[in-house]
Amino acid sequence: MTTEAPWRRLLAEFVGTALLVTAVVGSGIMANTLSPHEVGLQLLENSVATALALGALILIFGPVSGAHFNPVVSAADWFLGRRTHTGLSTRELAGYIAAQSTGAIGGTILANLMFALPPVEWSNKERSAGHLWLAEAVATAGLVLLVFALARSGRSTAAPAAVGAYIGAAYWFTSSTSFANPAVTLGRAFTDTFAGINPTSVPGYVLAQLGGLLLGVALLLALYPHVVHTDDEVLVTHPSVSNPATGTANRTS
Amino acid sequence: MTTEAPWRRLLAEFVGTALLVTAVVGSGIMANTLSPHEVGLQLLENSVATALALGALILIFGPVSGAHFNPVVSAADWFLGRRTHTGLSTRELAGYIAAQSTGAIGGTILANLMFALPPVEWSNKERSAGHLWLAEAVATAGLVLLVFALARSGRSTAAPAAVGAYIGAAYWFTSSTSFANPAVTLGRAFTDTFAGINPTSVPGYVLAQLGGLLLGVALLLALYPHVVHTDDEVLVTHPSVSNPATGTANRTS
Amino acid sequence: MTTEAPWRRLLAEFVGTALLVTAVVGSGIMANTLSPHEVGLQLLENSVATALALGALILIFGPVSGAHFNPVVSAADWFLGRRTHTGLSTRELAGYIAAQSTGAIGGTILANLMFALPPVEWSNKERSAGHLWLAEAVATAGLVLLVFALARSGRSTAAPAAVGAYIGAAYWFTSSTSFANPAVTLGRAFTDTFAGINPTSVPGYVLAQLGGLLLGVALLLALYPHVVHTDDEVLVTHPSVSNPATGTANRTS
Amino acid sequence: MTTEAPWRRLLAEFVGTALLVTAVVGSGIMANTLSPHEVGLQLLENSVATALALGALILIFGPVSGAHFNPVVSAADWFLGRRTHTGLSTRELAGYIAAQSTGAIGGTILANLMFALPPVEWSNKERSAGHLWLAEAVATAGLVLLVFALARSGRSTAAPAAVGAYIGAAYWFTSSTSFANPAVTLGRAFTDTFAGINPTSVPGYVLAQLGGLLLGVALLLALYPHVVHTDDEVLVTHPSVSNPATGTANRTS
Repeated sequence: MTTEAPWRRLLAEFVGTALLVTAVVGSGIMANTLSPHEVGLQLLENSVATALALGALILIFGPVSGAHFNPVVSAADWFLGRRTHTGLSTRELAGYIAAQSTGAIGGTILANLMFALPPVEWSNKERSAGHLWLAEAVATAGLVLLVFALARSGRSTAAPAAVGAYIGAAYWFTSSTSFANPAVTLGRAFTDTFAGINPTSVPGYVLAQLGGLLLGVALLLALYPHVVHTDDEVLVTHPSVSNPATGTANRTS
Repeated sequence: MTTEAPWRRLLAEFVGTALLVTAVVGSGIMANTLSPHEVGLQLLENSVATALALGALILIFGPVSGAHFNPVVSAADWFLGRRTHTGLSTRELAGYIAAQSTGAIGGTILANLMFALPPVEWSNKERSAGHLWLAEAVATAGLVLLVFALARSGRSTAAPAAVGAYIGAAYWFTSSTSFANPAVTLGRAFTDTFAGINPTSVPGYVLAQLGGLLLGVALLLALYPHVVHTDDEVLVTHPSVSNPATGTANRTS
Repeated sequence: MTTEAPWRRLLAEFVGTALLVTAVVGSGIMANTLSPHEVGLQLLENSVATALALGALILIFGPVSGAHFNPVVSAADWFLGRRTHTGLSTRELAGYIAAQSTGAIGGTILANLMFALPPVEWSNKERSAGHLWLAEAVATAGLVLLVFALARSGRSTAAPAAVGAYIGAAYWFTSSTSFANPAVTLGRAFTDTFAGINPTSVPGYVLAQLGGLLLGVALLLALYPHVVHTDDEVLVTHPSVSNPATGTANRTS
Repeated sequence: MTTEAPWRRLLAEFVGTALLVTAVVGSGIMANTLSPHEVGLQLLENSVATALALGALILIFGPVSGAHFNPVVSAADWFLGRRTHTGLSTRELAGYIAAQSTGAIGGTILANLMFALPPVEWSNKERSAGHLWLAEAVATAGLVLLVFALARSGRSTAAPAAVGAYIGAAYWFTSSTSFANPAVTLGRAFTDTFAGINPTSVPGYVLAQLGGLLLGVALLLALYPHVVHTDDEVLVTHPSVSNPATGTANRTS
């Protein structure tokens, strides 16, 4: 029973984040093509597809890497687990963020190619305003709270459906349509389609998401002050196990 | 193993109810903005977003406070558990209702701000008629029946998905779009958008919901006369435990 | 540990079937009102609401009566369990069918009243053609197969979500919009709205559903020839137990 | 405790694949009929119905045959299980593919008949282009990865919801609307409706799906190099058991 090899975990984060962004961008292109005059219907199609895809992707990659797909989640995992040695190490965190960011760009390119568009086009969609940043902070805080509330109460088997549902809802209840993910935000700058974001708007979104990270961690520590040790929670936040089915939680790295 | 501190449980009810109302009001604003001429589509978007958000929020806050987010649910918990000392005390009930009501108002303000609207605007939407009150009573009775049927048969782990699904459906099968929650009804008076309700219509809705509470409790006692003690049910109706993962159900307050 | 009282089980079938028909008819009225020129959108709204409501209702009433809500399901339960004494008795079957049929009519009346319509109006919607009857037979066979495949393999805890999902899909893939339930078919004759059916079309639908019952039972016996005894399956097909949480399966009636 | 008879497993694959194609084609006809001018809405209706039906069908037929419904899944099962004798034998693989292909054609005929159309009409819808083939390869690889990631980590009880969700999403994020199944692709050539595909486009789609099969298996072996033995995984990939509820996993064929 050894820990998953680091390359395998990074491969999982790379492919998983890529497919997540492919789902977001691709379903946005399809929605815009098929429902050209109905923006509300486009977002409904885009949000349903994203929610379902995200749930499936967390199931695929969860046992290998934790299925973070999101630097904010990885950073929270590193911060919250640093004392109990149950989270990512600083070095692992750097690797995760690199894999997620490159994966997100790759996923956008794949979506563009699948729809016969140029592989890269900078988005012209401005997303820059105070109320959008407030929305990103709220969306990100809620995501962090959800992922780690499940982990700290031993219910991470609910994470695939729960995280998909949360993001599907947050597309609607936030004015920013809830990017809530710096890597995905970066990747979405590379397509001039429904889900795109102008590169100049990326820093503002990422800063707001980091603000949401702090808020989410603070709320989590207020509501769930204690770490719980259960096999369940490995599915999302404890990637360093060989296989959840074996019940082992050894960590050698 | 001590019980959750009262302040932590009230914080959970406050933040949880706030985010629920943010989801209801925010997705209503988004739907109205993006599908301006299609009221049916607006309600579809609003109901799907609400159902998914509600499920995620119950998962987040359930282990801390029971995730009632609703004075009617808290009142039923107090009434049904008063003999077996498994429900809220009278004092806790008062605290829960205060946290839920202020949280609901806060959630509306947050939604308004996220969409660059004034923080508070009284709703002009009249919702006052006998058939609407009948609908609110039916919707509320069904909700009470669902929550406590799950609790009394040890299946509260199904509550997040089930309650979300029920509310998502009830938006459609009741003429009132199923507020079914006095705190949320109050909060929705503070926004002049899709999900709003004129302040003068609030008392009628709340009275109808209290009628539904009585009907729901009566049906519950007819169908499920006995309390069942299982660890499961703490997720929604027995908030006074330290942590469901530990299997403890001690109560000191 | 005694068996549930017969009156309690009949009450559960009555109220459960009533609320199911309320959901079907009510969401149809709402959809028709809010999306008046978009029949496809109406059916999407109606099918999503029905699927979600049905799942919640099976959760509420399953432990009490088995949550059949459908004479076809009750008849299959009686037939399949007659040798092993695990199904309904002939007398119980008669009671169930009576409760379901009166409940369905009551549910239509409630829906009409909630939308400020006359309590009873005969539907003018003709539904009478060979291809519609074929569709009803297919839809009913699939429903029987699903419910009892789950029961015979000890997976009835999946029934609420599965049956809701199946009916939600069958609204779309059958030309008849999948009534698949003689009691619900009867009840839907009492409303002249989206979900109505002309009384003269009811017998054809019911006959087709009985044909589907035979087909479904035949397929079930081919695929699942053996009865499996597990506590799980009580949720839908073994209503004669006191409480699934206690693990008892005694039967005295 | 004997293994399921081969005829029973083939019957399950035949009926299951037939009903899957009936759901895909039938809901496409209904969507096109009811939302004639809204292609996006048609795909939303078609994808939601397909996702829900697929989940229910995997639940029905999983314990009997593994509920592959797809030559690509059966081929992967044969390949991945050949050393550990946990997958299909070569002979079983041939039988599965024959049952799936004939079932898919039968399902299309049934859908056409349910909607009062001629039993067979060749589709005129051309689906032939490089970016569509890329999309089919991606969609198929993701499906293979999902099914066997769940199997190899002992979580196949999640497969019904997960596979339904994945396909529902992939309808949107791939330009080809994600056929991802050679048998279903063949069957869909027999109807000149929304879900049809011109017979001349079938070979290209099937080749792309086989490419996706290779990619999916390669990714799976990189991420999940080891086979895990658990009772859980029989639901999808170990069909040669008598009944999952009994916990037996004997294999005699």
